Amino acid sequence: MKKIVLTGAAGALGHQLRAPLAAMADQLVSTDLADAVEGLAGNETYVKADLGDAAAVMDLLEGAEMVVHFGAIGDEAPFEQILHSNFLGAYNVWNAAQKHGVRRIVYASSIHAMGMYPKTTRIDTKMPHRPDTFYGLSKCFAEDMASMYWDKYGIEAVCLRIYSASGPVGNARALGSWLSYDDLIQLVQRSIDTPITGFTVVYGVSNNDRSPVDNSAASFLGYRPKDNAEDFAEAILAQTPQADPQDKAQMCHGGPFATVPLGESGVAYIKKMSVS
Amino acid sequence: MKKIVLTGAAGALGHQLRAPLAAMADQLVSTDLADAVEGLAGNETYVKADLGDAAAVMDLLEGAEMVVHFGAIGDEAPFEQILHSNFLGAYNVWNAAQKHGVRRIVYASSIHAMGMYPKTTRIDTKMPHRPDTFYGLSKCFAEDMASMYWDKYGIEAVCLRIYSASGPVGNARALGSWLSYDDLIQLVQRSIDTPITGFTVVYGVSNNDRSPVDNSAASFLGYRPKDNAEDFAEAILAQTPQADPQDKAQMCHGGPFATVPLGESGVAYIKKMSVS
Amino acid sequence: MKKIVLTGAAGALGHQLRAPLAAMADQLVSTDLADAVEGLAGNETYVKADLGDAAAVMDLLEGAEMVVHFGAIGDEAPFEQILHSNFLGAYNVWNAAQKHGVRRIVYASSIHAMGMYPKTTRIDTKMPHRPDTFYGLSKCFAEDMASMYWDKYGIEAVCLRIYSASGPVGNARALGSWLSYDDLIQLVQRSIDTPITGFTVVYGVSNNDRSPVDNSAASFLGYRPKDNAEDFAEAILAQTPQADPQDKAQMCHGGPFATVPLGESGVAYIKKMSVS
Amino acid sequence: MKKIVLTGAAGALGHQLRAPLAAMADQLVSTDLADAVEGLAGNETYVKADLGDAAAVMDLLEGAEMVVHFGAIGDEAPFEQILHSNFLGAYNVWNAAQKHGVRRIVYASSIHAMGMYPKTTRIDTKMPHRPDTFYGLSKCFAEDMASMYWDKYGIEAVCLRIYSASGPVGNARALGSWLSYDDLIQLVQRSIDTPITGFTVVYGVSNNDRSPVDNSAASFLGYRPKDNAEDFAEAILAQTPQADPQDKAQMCHGGPFATVPLGESGVAYIKKMSVS
Amino acid sequence: MKKIVLTGAAGALGHQLRAPLAAMADQLVSTDLADAVEGLAGNETYVKADLGDAAAVMDLLEGAEMVVHFGAIGDEAPFEQILHSNFLGAYNVWNAAQKHGVRRIVYASSIHAMGMYPKTTRIDTKMPHRPDTFYGLSKCFAEDMASMYWDKYGIEAVCLRIYSASGPVGNARALGSWLSYDDLIQLVQRSIDTPITGFTVVYGVSNNDRSPVDNSAASFLGYRPKDNAEDFAEAILAQTPQADPQDKAQMCHGGPFATVPLGESGVAYIKKMSVS
Amino acid sequence: MKKIVLTGAAGALGHQLRAPLAAMADQLVSTDLADAVEGLAGNETYVKADLGDAAAVMDLLEGAEMVVHFGAIGDEAPFEQILHSNFLGAYNVWNAAQKHGVRRIVYASSIHAMGMYPKTTRIDTKMPHRPDTFYGLSKCFAEDMASMYWDKYGIEAVCLRIYSASGPVGNARALGSWLSYDDLIQLVQRSIDTPITGFTVVYGVSNNDRSPVDNSAASFLGYRPKDNAEDFAEAILAQTPQADPQDKAQMCHGGPFATVPLGESGVAYIKKMSVS
Repeated sequence: MKKIVLTGAAGALGHQLRAPLAAMADQLVSTDLADAVEGLAGNETYVKADLGDAAAVMDLLEGAEMVVHFGAIGDEAPFEQILHSNFLGAYNVWNAAQKHGVRRIVYASSIHAMGMYPKTTRIDTKMPHRPDTFYGLSKCFAEDMASMYWDKYGIEAVCLRIYSASGPVGNARALGSWLSYDDLIQLVQRSIDTPITGFTVVYGVSNNDRSPVDNSAASFLGYRPKDNAEDFAEAILAQTPQADPQDKAQMCHGGPFATVPLGESGVAYIKKMSVS
Repeated sequence: MKKIVLTGAAGALGHQLRAPLAAMADQLVSTDLADAVEGLAGNETYVKADLGDAAAVMDLLEGAEMVVHFGAIGDEAPFEQILHSNFLGAYNVWNAAQKHGVRRIVYASSIHAMGMYPKTTRIDTKMPHRPDTFYGLSKCFAEDMASMYWDKYGIEAVCLRIYSASGPVGNARALGSWLSYDDLIQLVQRSIDTPITGFTVVYGVSNNDRSPVDNSAASFLGYRPKDNAEDFAEAILAQTPQADPQDKAQMCHGGPFATVPLGESGVAYIKKMSVS
Repeated sequence: MKKIVLTGAAGALGHQLRAPLAAMADQLVSTDLADAVEGLAGNETYVKADLGDAAAVMDLLEGAEMVVHFGAIGDEAPFEQILHSNFLGAYNVWNAAQKHGVRRIVYASSIHAMGMYPKTTRIDTKMPHRPDTFYGLSKCFAEDMASMYWDKYGIEAVCLRIYSASGPVGNARALGSWLSYDDLIQLVQRSIDTPITGFTVVYGVSNNDRSPVDNSAASFLGYRPKDNAEDFAEAILAQTPQADPQDKAQMCHGGPFATVPLGESGVAYIKKMSVS
Repeated sequence: MKKIVLTGAAGALGHQLRAPLAAMADQLVSTDLADAVEGLAGNETYVKADLGDAAAVMDLLEGAEMVVHFGAIGDEAPFEQILHSNFLGAYNVWNAAQKHGVRRIVYASSIHAMGMYPKTTRIDTKMPHRPDTFYGLSKCFAEDMASMYWDKYGIEAVCLRIYSASGPVGNARALGSWLSYDDLIQLVQRSIDTPITGFTVVYGVSNNDRSPVDNSAASFLGYRPKDNAEDFAEAILAQTPQADPQDKAQMCHGGPFATVPLGESGVAYIKKMSVS
Repeated sequence: MKKIVLTGAAGALGHQLRAPLAAMADQLVSTDLADAVEGLAGNETYVKADLGDAAAVMDLLEGAEMVVHFGAIGDEAPFEQILHSNFLGAYNVWNAAQKHGVRRIVYASSIHAMGMYPKTTRIDTKMPHRPDTFYGLSKCFAEDMASMYWDKYGIEAVCLRIYSASGPVGNARALGSWLSYDDLIQLVQRSIDTPITGFTVVYGVSNNDRSPVDNSAASFLGYRPKDNAEDFAEAILAQTPQADPQDKAQMCHGGPFATVPLGESGVAYIKKMSVS
Repeated sequence: MKKIVLTGAAGALGHQLRAPLAAMADQLVSTDLADAVEGLAGNETYVKADLGDAAAVMDLLEGAEMVVHFGAIGDEAPFEQILHSNFLGAYNVWNAAQKHGVRRIVYASSIHAMGMYPKTTRIDTKMPHRPDTFYGLSKCFAEDMASMYWDKYGIEAVCLRIYSASGPVGNARALGSWLSYDDLIQLVQRSIDTPITGFTVVYGVSNNDRSPVDNSAASFLGYRPKDNAEDFAEAILAQTPQADPQDKAQMCHGGPFATVPLGESGVAYIKKMSVS
């Protein structure tokens, strides 16, 4: 492959993806709001850009075959902020992709597009959206837009509904929802090397014993996670207070995002529930 | 009921709804971009307002029990225009509704949220979105937002996926998709008088022999359309040229919107296909 | 048909069924706890019996081809009472039917076997039980027993999940749930005259615009109700206070039974919500 | 439409279709094994032909826009006979249609493609085949072939799973399965005048109270039957002996075809069960 | 956790669970009909009690957080016996749990709640009950009651549909249905340590190659069995006579329970079919 | 088992099966069109026969308990050839099996019975057929016939929808579709040693990461493949040109068979796409 563009390259997840992506293409263009990122690969270029700026995005995607679109506000925030970075940012990416003939977009969607389902309901990739925040709503938007660009223009998309991507497993919720960095990398690699994907949705979750999602409809992607949060279960459960099944923050897939007031940071809430 | 707010009151559909809504509440507040509307009912007030203006919407909804939200650009248009009127307009309505304790929003969604499904696939109200235009995408957005405000704040919503609302039946596609004005009025009335609706999606289609949609999941609303486009079938089919099943404009639920370039008017295309 | 046995003959619904059943068989044996019933048909015999008495039931069913089993406590009550009349009573009926080679049992099940589903969920005849009371639980029990006697012994059963059988339509809930007496009679007639039924479940609801149930899987029975509670809608809705969608008594199929404490009368609660 | 070809024109159903089809096209070519048929319409030509003769079929379809393919052995028969008339006949029709660019084939499939399902199972148009005879197996074959020619060559097909097409309703089974001639004609008309059909399967059953099939997936065709076998129910049920639910001839959709030995006439069995 | 109550502690399965449960709580109260059990853990108390005795059960559950309810007749038996021990016993447990504010009940349900399904039908946890015996019927009852106490009072329940729990794999049926003791223990542990379960049903089967059940809807529990009956396959199949697919005792999930007369021991039949 | 008959014994797959089948029965009769096969097992007999010859097939199956039916043209070919070898051959096998009381037929069906589904649609064993060639159509026919003989005569059948059975993994499509010979052998063994199978369909695919099929409904067979085409992925993907998602030969399960003209060899096309 000639050229891949990675947005959100300075974020925690984007950082994990830079080296693997550099190994899959002649040229990797990484971009984010930061002034620079460290440790560029030999075939990697970094470009500072705001995805809400249509012209900047149009320039970035010229000549690209695929875009790995991870750039966005990664937390709940006031609607206007989400509108700019996540809604408009995603539109700019797809619009530029169509103009430049980009073949496929691998998109960092999120479990928060489905966050209001109770965790006792196993969710698959065909059920209707039930977002929990403006953040989650922006993911619904981009997924629906991706579906439309595939239907109308043949631009492929793999939407990764990332659950809890993090280094260590930090709390009881993550025993089901954890996505290790290695598994994230595998998921992105398969989303790129699969010859044909059309429009596909897949959950980004590790091979956890307690995984509450169903990826079977996307089995052709070949995503087979290797890590299992159960290795952390005994230690974490010992420190976890009794749960309240009437509390949506504990009962829903979205976790604390299910109860955080719209527009307020959900990450802050998640930190509070973590086992220190 | 004390107060209903009707947005889009100057539009073709809003116009049909004013008198019936005035009969259902102590007070009807109608609003649109026009300077004025004619024929106000005794308990009806008209307020000129842009739904993209958050403060104006906040004022309008004070004291309202229900909002009938029909105000939006009703055709495909450039993304920025849709973003302002349809996305931001809908957000302003739900945000104000939550602040003011509005009980329910009856929303004019559209078949174009599902327009890329082939017409030989009967669509129900639980299948994933497949929008055909930015216009349709804005309907997906508002539906998902409505689901979220119900899940998080208990604000009810009935999303009417209006198909082809018009006076006469104008072309072969409408033999399946027609929604007569009388049936539209019934649909809105039932969406209001049903004691509890939660978050519900329902197609706005008349009792056409050739109706290609499935409203069974929303049967509790009691919507039973009376009109049937089949009365127009013989005359229209006699003037309809042979169809091409490989042409998405003929094969898809969205009709010409399925092939119109994103951002260009689909209504213009529909007019071209109509039997004069 | 030679002989039909009707249990619960002195109850409100049993009373409606006596004449129609007498017209369908050479002999009708009616039974209940009352000393006598009035207006016996020429081929009708009345026998006072307690269905909790195994020997009495065994005697009653001798020579019967079909049993129309409507005898039971028709309201929520302490568990021990339900256990005797509804659980043990039903067991005695099926056990005697198997001993005597009875061909089919038409059983008065109830919506309260499914009462905890929200009304915005359309319920069909294949979904798992969600009873709302001991009363509803006894209906689940008899349905499952009926399935077993069909699977093991070939005794047919038609389980009628009766919703709100009554003369007039008394409250807003009944706009969806009403079963007129004429439609009840048709439903029982079809359950009897259909040549083969196997084990079948069907909802007992009239042809209400707002019917929230799905009988399609039992369409072979030919039940086509004629009455429609919508005729009463305007008058009733005018007197109905605003509903609370967080109140299970209003949100669930079971109505007030959904919130009545287990063992306490639900009928009393229903009366309170009725429009006088 | 310029030209329609009707095969099986001399059969009982083909006879019903000749005049209505003649009214829908400039030219109707009727064909069958008989030497001649009576009462030709002004624009109708009759050609004697064996559908098992590839060259004859190739000649017949030249210039045709649609084929209404009803020609076949209409009863169970030895495999070799079915192979010639039904399998090879259908292949010749589709093969010629593809060579000549025919737009659509309306095909007389049969309930016997699904005959081994129990009647207490409502069958839809997406469930797997369960044929009951070689005759039914030939219908499965033609349906699957029709699907393939649509997928590969864009030739449309409407497969009518005709249940019990007949003049009077003759037995208890037909109370559910009857298809009146008027409804058959409507079904064929809609299969022709619908602008786009793709590959579609639909049951040919009247508006019987006891209809045991589900046509909802094909609702876009606009088939709304008017006749109802229930008008005959009282008279027929009075003469019908008690059924045996363990007898597949009574329990299955295919009726006597479900138990007739493969290769032997099922129609003869059906006659035996009819009320004289 | 402060206190767990284990019923059926003297039974074969209860015996396996005592030590693991003792390790999960400050206090374990074991109970059964036996006078005593051997090998009490340091924090374990044994109480002799009949679960059909409401007062005794009320005493036992005081202060308990969870109940592991395995106490019941574990075989088919006359209805009156099942009624007392299994129906009334289960009612007493849930009733006392509600009075005492118990958080969760882990319940030994059984495959015999679903025993009449053919083994060629994979069964999941949402399909309707099809019990094979009074024993199985009592499991249906308790599952439905568990659903109701969750819906009405928020008492959680995990219903384990135990298939063939035993030490060695004894016959061909068990190649699919075996549940090893280690896997049983894991299943109970996960049912307890999962923070929130709501009302959940899960099959108790090991990781057998030939497992005929679908636990995917309960994946959030994290039950991942380790043992596999296939290790025994070659030896057992070599001694197994040819099966008869028309024999329900071989064809159904319930095995011999599917054909044993109601009220007669099914375990005796299973022993007869075992490879010695 | 006394006697197994293997058809297609001289083919590539039949060759793999001879030794394993010889080990499972007292007597193995192998047959094909070839004059002889090499390396007969001690209990193996080879008979040259044309399966289109009814008498020859009738002789072969005398005394057989099971037939492993792999004999057929294994590629797309003109309809008349397929009709003789695959349609008539299969009919002869089932007809003789019924006459001789054969217990079960293990049949080499093919993915080409489902070849027109897009690969992004995971296919299960209950979806309708969508054949891609006359070859695939003959597999649909035999599956439907197998269903009928089971329903009417109790002859069991396991239909193996073999995907890409081959030694090495030769192209990108096979990363999902590969069936190793060892896994093929396991699949046939389990299809034989499972005590009861009824009529069952199962896909023949290895344990590939990228497997696009769903065998869960047939889990009772215990087929657990061991090989994984992913071992070949890196090498093959490095040599694979960019795919075109609008090309059915790349997008559909059937691969090149999806676009090959009916009647022309599809194997030739597959060779062209292979990585040398």
